[in-house]
Amino acid sequence: MRAVEWNSVGPAVRVVDQRRLPSELACRDLATVDDVAAAIRDMIVRGAPTLGATAGFGLALAGHLSTADDLAGFQTDLERAAAQLRAARPTAVNLPQALDRLMARVAVADSIDVARAWLLLDAQQLANDEVARNRLIGQHGAALLADGDTVLHHCHTGALAAVDFGTALGVLRTAHEQGKRLTVLVDETRPRLQGARLTAWELQRLGIAFEVIPDTAAGHYLQRGEVQAVFVGADRVAANGDVANKIGTYMLALAANANQVPFYSAFPSTTIDLSCPDGTAIPIEDRSPDEVLCLNVAGDPVFPAGVAARNPAFDVTPHALITALITEHGVLRPPFGPALRRAAVEGVSA
Amino acid sequence: MRAVEWNSVGPAVRVVDQRRLPSELACRDLATVDDVAAAIRDMIVRGAPTLGATAGFGLALAGHLSTADDLAGFQTDLERAAAQLRAARPTAVNLPQALDRLMARVAVADSIDVARAWLLLDAQQLANDEVARNRLIGQHGAALLADGDTVLHHCHTGALAAVDFGTALGVLRTAHEQGKRLTVLVDETRPRLQGARLTAWELQRLGIAFEVIPDTAAGHYLQRGEVQAVFVGADRVAANGDVANKIGTYMLALAANANQVPFYSAFPSTTIDLSCPDGTAIPIEDRSPDEVLCLNVAGDPVFPAGVAARNPAFDVTPHALITALITEHGVLRPPFGPALRRAAVEGVSA
Repeated sequence: MRAVEWNSVGPAVRVVDQRRLPSELACRDLATVDDVAAAIRDMIVRGAPTLGATAGFGLALAGHLSTADDLAGFQTDLERAAAQLRAARPTAVNLPQALDRLMARVAVADSIDVARAWLLLDAQQLANDEVARNRLIGQHGAALLADGDTVLHHCHTGALAAVDFGTALGVLRTAHEQGKRLTVLVDETRPRLQGARLTAWELQRLGIAFEVIPDTAAGHYLQRGEVQAVFVGADRVAANGDVANKIGTYMLALAANANQVPFYSAFPSTTIDLSCPDGTAIPIEDRSPDEVLCLNVAGDPVFPAGVAARNPAFDVTPHALITALITEHGVLRPPFGPALRRAAVEGVSA
Repeated sequence: MRAVEWNSVGPAVRVVDQRRLPSELACRDLATVDDVAAAIRDMIVRGAPTLGATAGFGLALAGHLSTADDLAGFQTDLERAAAQLRAARPTAVNLPQALDRLMARVAVADSIDVARAWLLLDAQQLANDEVARNRLIGQHGAALLADGDTVLHHCHTGALAAVDFGTALGVLRTAHEQGKRLTVLVDETRPRLQGARLTAWELQRLGIAFEVIPDTAAGHYLQRGEVQAVFVGADRVAANGDVANKIGTYMLALAANANQVPFYSAFPSTTIDLSCPDGTAIPIEDRSPDEVLCLNVAGDPVFPAGVAARNPAFDVTPHALITALITEHGVLRPPFGPALRRAAVEGVSA
């Protein structure tokens, strides 16, 4: 199954509960817009493309649940739902982009029934498109890898993060399917440990060789010449190629750059935001300190009682540190601006 | 009490069990050389100066426990004990330096009783010297800090790591005692979380304001201009100023450097190893993957079963990334080579 799907019995948005992995592969049916917004906020679903698709299905659900008896009332219901979903998490641009795409349909519908049908079709199309884009990203990116390479990967960019197949992890998966033998150094990705939990779990299922490392160890292996390439995803890419991605990406890019190791960010065109001229315009989400402080080892809490923590969910990697951006339209090289503009426009029309 | 002391009732080496903090402040009496070596290996004691002092007391203990009836036999017993302690952990040079200093005494002793007495006096002197050095490091380093500064700190360099008072943390403590209001961003320091466990605990007791951050977040705050200085300790400093320190230090130095934030390493002259021309000559300890994989959150394991991990305990920060080295002899600026040679020689004669 996919990370997010439409469950017509219900109806509901059916998602894999990513917080339960690797202990348990469990699904949840989200039967209200409140539930969908909470699942996004609480990271039951996460990963920029998956967030976009979940928001799309959430809006389709809002259409099904609306009890309005005229089109104006229906549109008001949908606008309220879109605002709620939009507010759930701020950084991944796929989420507002999906909502904008579907709301444009609602605005021109001439009946509630037509609007409902379009919403679901569009949400399904959007999810399908993400998977198709991932396959193309994989094809383009795999050409950058050679048999025997060791690759460093941060956070999680696999099937669960990208509806299906994956973005950066999809590149590694494609290279693996092509018979290239890879070893992946998996950054565990504190604080939420998506690398330890999800990337390790997906690589294990795919049969790709890997070892987990603490995030702190990445620089050491880059310095020692053990890594041929660094691969990450993206949550929002500014018009100049600055990449907002999971916290820790920036230091990894600095370490790759200092050691002349290529640094790649892989993402679909739905992650490009031309309205942000550079990374400083991208909103960075601060999440609860509890996500940092909840660790324990053998039942003992790691942090002293009463300690304060800070928990920025993303950071911005300046484009100058990035070797290439991998999209469904190909491998983009610097200067990124013109290529991103083309990719974003083609992406909208795709 | 200090991180390590001589317990004449026993006799034994008495240490704070650093693995039990912050849950419990507990001491252990190490009554055999095996126990002392195991306490070093298993990180019941840790921190380069504390390791040197513990090795010194361990050798004094070996002297007390030796049942040899002639000086040659006594020296053989001591050589065996020194070899065992030396092998316990490879990176911190304070450990072999302490052993060399005490073994030089054993070599010139003219009776077992004299050797025993010298060993204990020297071990105590060595521990006292570390504390005196820390106070000087604190005085020299505090001049680098201004009222209101936010400082980023990696791993743990406080009283527990340095017999008493601390090295890098001793600098912050001295500035705090001078009335400078500091805020410390505390890197949690995966995998063993010495920042979360020990630095947070010591700062809390000292009343210095701090917030814990995941190691991955350090670059973000440096990039945003929120940090005025980065402070770390050292486990071994090469003749050219390259610093081996807790894993993650190198990426932190890169991020400080990229954002023109001063990066300071504070350590006593006993941490300088002139026999290493540069960082590539410093042995880097690989520790058990179990230290990475033991995490759980609310009782659930974080890592999938059967996952492999790598766990390098230290990395090397090239001297070019370091603004200044802070020793008991003052604040050393580049080029570090001549200043380190002077500090190391004065250190030996101190």
